Amino acid sequence: MSPRLQAIYHIRSDARSIEARARAIAVEQSVEMPLSAIADEFVHAEIVGRVEGIAEQEPGLFEVRISLAAQTVGGDPGQLINMLFGNTSLHDDVTLHDVALPAELVKGFGGPRHGLHELRRRVGAPARALTCSALKPQGLPPAGLADLALRFARGGVDYIKDDHGLADQAYSPFRARVDAVAEALRTLDPGGKTVRYVPSLAGDLDAMREQIDDAGRAGVDTVMVAPMIAGLSNFHRLVREHPTVAFVAHPTMAGAAQIAPAFLLGTLFRVLGADAVVFPNYGGRFGYSPDTCRALARAALDDRDGLRPSVPVPAGGMTTDRVPEMLDFYGADVMLLIGGALLEAREQLTEATAAFVAKVRGHAYG
Amino acid sequence: MSPRLQAIYHIRSDARSIEARARAIAVEQSVEMPLSAIADEFVHAEIVGRVEGIAEQEPGLFEVRISLAAQTVGGDPGQLINMLFGNTSLHDDVTLHDVALPAELVKGFGGPRHGLHELRRRVGAPARALTCSALKPQGLPPAGLADLALRFARGGVDYIKDDHGLADQAYSPFRARVDAVAEALRTLDPGGKTVRYVPSLAGDLDAMREQIDDAGRAGVDTVMVAPMIAGLSNFHRLVREHPTVAFVAHPTMAGAAQIAPAFLLGTLFRVLGADAVVFPNYGGRFGYSPDTCRALARAALDDRDGLRPSVPVPAGGMTTDRVPEMLDFYGADVMLLIGGALLEAREQLTEATAAFVAKVRGHAYG
Repeated sequence: MSPRLQAIYHIRSDARSIEARARAIAVEQSVEMPLSAIADEFVHAEIVGRVEGIAEQEPGLFEVRISLAAQTVGGDPGQLINMLFGNTSLHDDVTLHDVALPAELVKGFGGPRHGLHELRRRVGAPARALTCSALKPQGLPPAGLADLALRFARGGVDYIKDDHGLADQAYSPFRARVDAVAEALRTLDPGGKTVRYVPSLAGDLDAMREQIDDAGRAGVDTVMVAPMIAGLSNFHRLVREHPTVAFVAHPTMAGAAQIAPAFLLGTLFRVLGADAVVFPNYGGRFGYSPDTCRALARAALDDRDGLRPSVPVPAGGMTTDRVPEMLDFYGADVMLLIGGALLEAREQLTEATAAFVAKVRGHAYG
Repeated sequence: MSPRLQAIYHIRSDARSIEARARAIAVEQSVEMPLSAIADEFVHAEIVGRVEGIAEQEPGLFEVRISLAAQTVGGDPGQLINMLFGNTSLHDDVTLHDVALPAELVKGFGGPRHGLHELRRRVGAPARALTCSALKPQGLPPAGLADLALRFARGGVDYIKDDHGLADQAYSPFRARVDAVAEALRTLDPGGKTVRYVPSLAGDLDAMREQIDDAGRAGVDTVMVAPMIAGLSNFHRLVREHPTVAFVAHPTMAGAAQIAPAFLLGTLFRVLGADAVVFPNYGGRFGYSPDTCRALARAALDDRDGLRPSVPVPAGGMTTDRVPEMLDFYGADVMLLIGGALLEAREQLTEATAAFVAKVRGHAYG
């Protein structure tokens, strides 16, 4: 028997229909045709999806486990999500809850090339929680963003990422922005030992390759990508092609209702090579629960299949006064990202950043 | 005033909170930071999203119109969806309902390079509804798929597409499959005047480019792509780079609950260059309503911004006995796709296909 993916779906259904629903999803996500029309024995034995279990979670909500042949994936990340959830995503009463991926498939993708340890090493912080802020708003010219970066860096932050809205717009073209920010940070940290700029890539695969090259020429070795917009296959291709570059994954367009964040952002982005994963923290601007965030961080960090840990980066409306609570919740294997709340300090941006950084460095873990 | 996108969101909210929710989305989808922290006048005047209108649709459901600066898109399709819905997709009570795109942006993307007229011309059917079927199940070897294609073609079908599950798997590698199917069809239609094979592309941008080249060498000039898996920017790049190739867009991973199908599949896929758009027809395996399907077909076909019409391809559990009803519903500017129901005929596949084709050709439009 060849290896199979074990996919878990949550389905809203009445009890009478759930077996038929489960079988329909197993067919939809594999052969997508009536089984009676299939003559081939190999297809019946290997390719057709199999309902492996059905359990009622609460009245009207079922957990269904379906196994799918790993052969159908052909080693491609886009085809993986296509097989796991493609057409079934068109049903609004089904979510993809979790997937156990065969070790061979995980090994083929390879996970983070750097991960937690290297992201700490790059900023000379061997054991503590990392800090991050964001350059915004879009609309500022490169010099304006570079000025913000400098003030964040003076406050002692470890990573300074682009807002994910910064792309390759006329008011701040990618190359001009990267050059300006990198140059500003070099004045402060000539050896590049304490702070890293993380520009956000945009466009098609070739555009992103050029942006990575431009970033490299400016001495930048960490970038951000939105895998659900770039396409999972293209994200993974960038990871494979650029072994010295660290990749931060952004959740934009990851959807709310359809794929469980712990699997999509925690497991899948990590398996495909994300060194760090930004996600909306509970109690911020988005509706993720503490349980969702805990499961996501665990999926990013846990010891599995020999993968390096990916750094969880909770974000989305965080403030400095939440630092102690967040560090108690996540522990030190985390990167805290505060953007807007620091920028609100305006003239006191450096001081506000320093206060954030001090709170992270001085935290007494419970 | 520079051009703006007019985005319409549907939000579940209580009446008390809707103004704040609307303002929060306008900020999230533009500057993503507190407005009080923004000093720059240009950003305030141009870049910040604006709530243009709020209307209650039914108790607890609001239609909110927000305008966003077209400059934030920078001409990139991935950045377009990022600005329209990226982070807001993480809220499960908001859907992106529709967007009015500025004419300059639409013109820049250019829409279908071929569209309805050319897809008809390619199979010598100048005015009638087109017919399509699908090669499946995955797991068959190239020779098995080629045999099915031959029998579909003998039945007189116009287009034979790959199931979207067919990628580049070991049991049927892309190139071997395309060569086998194209060769089989050449025996029947040496001039390539009556039937077209539409292989499904998979993988990253470079893999898809190679597949288009392989297809071209086999005489194949029509391909299928899943834009939500390939990434919108990569899909559009393929369209721009291959002006003689016609592109059929597949809805896999287009989600159910978050972006209205008429906008995503009908408008956006068309604007980015889809010559035909596959979507789940009402009354099949998926839950789209007749109204959704009508709106989607209209968006694909309507006369707008000088774009060529994109062919609506309703599918997903269709049967030959539904042909008259579907043609009355959609009219003749449509491609009907029946896959599994024809394959169920097994040894009588050619006859079943011929019956489908005859019903389409002989339909008396009401």
